[in-house]
Amino acid sequence: MADEPSAQMNNKFVHDQLIRFSHCDPAGIVYFPRFFDLAHATMEDWLAQGVGQGLPALIGERRIGTPTVSIQCDFVKTLRIGDTLRFELTVTKVGNSSVNLAYRGLKNGGSDEHLNIRQTIVFMDLAAGRAIPIPDDLRPRIEHFLVQP
Amino acid sequence: MADEPSAQMNNKFVHDQLIRFSHCDPAGIVYFPRFFDLAHATMEDWLAQGVGQGLPALIGERRIGTPTVSIQCDFVKTLRIGDTLRFELTVTKVGNSSVNLAYRGLKNGGSDEHLNIRQTIVFMDLAAGRAIPIPDDLRPRIEHFLVQP
Amino acid sequence: MADEPSAQMNNKFVHDQLIRFSHCDPAGIVYFPRFFDLAHATMEDWLAQGVGQGLPALIGERRIGTPTVSIQCDFVKTLRIGDTLRFELTVTKVGNSSVNLAYRGLKNGGSDEHLNIRQTIVFMDLAAGRAIPIPDDLRPRIEHFLVQP
Amino acid sequence: MADEPSAQMNNKFVHDQLIRFSHCDPAGIVYFPRFFDLAHATMEDWLAQGVGQGLPALIGERRIGTPTVSIQCDFVKTLRIGDTLRFELTVTKVGNSSVNLAYRGLKNGGSDEHLNIRQTIVFMDLAAGRAIPIPDDLRPRIEHFLVQP
Repeated sequence: MADEPSAQMNNKFVHDQLIRFSHCDPAGIVYFPRFFDLAHATMEDWLAQGVGQGLPALIGERRIGTPTVSIQCDFVKTLRIGDTLRFELTVTKVGNSSVNLAYRGLKNGGSDEHLNIRQTIVFMDLAAGRAIPIPDDLRPRIEHFLVQP
Repeated sequence: MADEPSAQMNNKFVHDQLIRFSHCDPAGIVYFPRFFDLAHATMEDWLAQGVGQGLPALIGERRIGTPTVSIQCDFVKTLRIGDTLRFELTVTKVGNSSVNLAYRGLKNGGSDEHLNIRQTIVFMDLAAGRAIPIPDDLRPRIEHFLVQP
Repeated sequence: MADEPSAQMNNKFVHDQLIRFSHCDPAGIVYFPRFFDLAHATMEDWLAQGVGQGLPALIGERRIGTPTVSIQCDFVKTLRIGDTLRFELTVTKVGNSSVNLAYRGLKNGGSDEHLNIRQTIVFMDLAAGRAIPIPDDLRPRIEHFLVQP
Repeated sequence: MADEPSAQMNNKFVHDQLIRFSHCDPAGIVYFPRFFDLAHATMEDWLAQGVGQGLPALIGERRIGTPTVSIQCDFVKTLRIGDTLRFELTVTKVGNSSVNLAYRGLKNGGSDEHLNIRQTIVFMDLAAGRAIPIPDDLRPRIEHFLVQP
C-alpha cells in the first residue's frame, strides 16, 4: 500500500476514534475483537462520507448489504484507553461484486503502524441473499479510493 | 423475592455462565454493561427451556419479540474472569402484555447476592411494532415461574 | 429533572453519538445493553471535558475508578442505525463518595425523550478496593452539573 | 489442516456455542466481530481443559498473557440466532514464544465449513510487556494438539 498516494490515482479516508474503557481488557489494552468494531465504524463513515451512500439507506432503502467475506489483521503495537486510533482506509482492489479494503492503524497522530487490517466485502442483495455487481452509482466513488499496490 | 420458594407457588430458573476475558475491564472486573448481555442469555435459555418457546422461533416464525421497556440493576459485589455467575430468574408480575423478571446474581455456587436485576419485557408484534397480549400457549408456562413477593 | 435549568443552578453536558450497525439487533433497533456502552462513553467525555479529569489519567495515574453501583433505564422509544442519540447528562445528587447521574436520551435533535438512565457511581481507590471521598479538586466541577429535582 | 487427524499425530479441541441474540445484526446473521469473541471463548476453554492451564490463573497468578499478534478469517456461510457453532481447534505450529491456532467453524453438527480462523498468539510476560518462551509445563500439552499440515 502506497504511503503517499498521488492525488490523481487515489485517496485515503482518514478516521479518528477515541479508545474507550469498553474497548480495553484486563491487561489494560484494546481487546482485539473490538478493533473490528472500530474498523466497521470507519467503513460506515467511509461509505457515508467518502462514497456518498451510508449503510442505513443502503440497507434500509436499497436492501443492499456489504457483508465481510474475509478479514485479516496484524497487531503490531498495543493501544490503551485514552489513545486516539486513526484508521487510514484505502481500496486495494475493486472486483465485480467485491471490494478489498486496507486499514492502517496509527496512534495519537503518529505515523507508526500499530495495526493493519485487510478486508474483503461483497455487495449483496439482502432479499435474495446473493452477491450483486457493485451498483453503478457507487463504483466510481469507490474507485476514487483505489491505490496502486 | 422469596429465597426458598415453595414448589407450588413458584419456580426459579437457574442458569450458570462463566465470566470470560471479554466480559472484564481494565480493573479486572466485569464491565457492567456485559451483565445485561449475560442476563439476556439467561432470559433466552429460560424462554427456550423454561417456557418452552425459544427466541429464534418466536422471532423467526411467529414474528413476536420481547423488547425490554425498563431495567434496573444493583451491583453489590464484583465478579472476575474465571468466576461462575449464577442467575436465578423468577417472574415477579405477569400483566396483559408485560412480564416482570428478577435475576439474583450469585458467584461460584455461593448464596451471597452479587447483583440483582429487575426487568420488564413486553410481548410485541414485530411487524406491527406494538404490544400484544402474552400468547395463550405461553402464559401458563410463564406463570409457573411467578413468585409471591 | 428540570428541562431548562437556570444557568446558575446547574448545567447539562450534551453528547451526541451515531447509532451504528454494531449497536443494532435482528429487529433493526438498538440492542438495549449497547445503550449502557453509549452512556459510559458520555460519562467518559463528561469526566474529561466537563469535570476536567479524564478516566485514563484518573485510573492510570491516580488509581481511582468510578464503578457503577446501581443503574436503571426506561426505554420509551426505539432508535435505529443512522439515528443520532443525544444524551443530556446532569448530576442529581452528590454524596460523600457517590454521584448520581441522569441521562436523557433524545433522537436526531428532537426533544422527545426516547430513553432515560439514572446511575450511581462511586469513587474508589483501585488499589485498596474501597470507596473514597470524591477528590477535592473534582467536587466543585461535579457540583457544577447538579440540578435541583 | 487435516480433516481426520490420526490419533497419534494430533488432536482437536471441539467446542460448541449457541448463537445468541446479542451476536446477530440487523440482517439477522452473526455480526462478524462477534466470531472473534466466540473464538476467544474457545481458546479460553482449550487452555483450561485442553492445555490444563486456564487464562484466569495464567494471567492472575503467573502474570502471563497470550495476546493475539495476527488473525485472519474466511466467512464462508452465515450463522443465525439459535444455530450452534462448533469450533474445532487445532495447533498448526509451535514456535519459541508463539503458537498458531486454526479454528474450523461448523454449524448444528454438520461437517460443512462455515468459517475458518487462523490466529497467532504469543506468550507474554505481562509485567515486562515482552514475549517469553512457551512455559515448559505447557509446551507438551500444546503440542498434543499439533496437526501436520
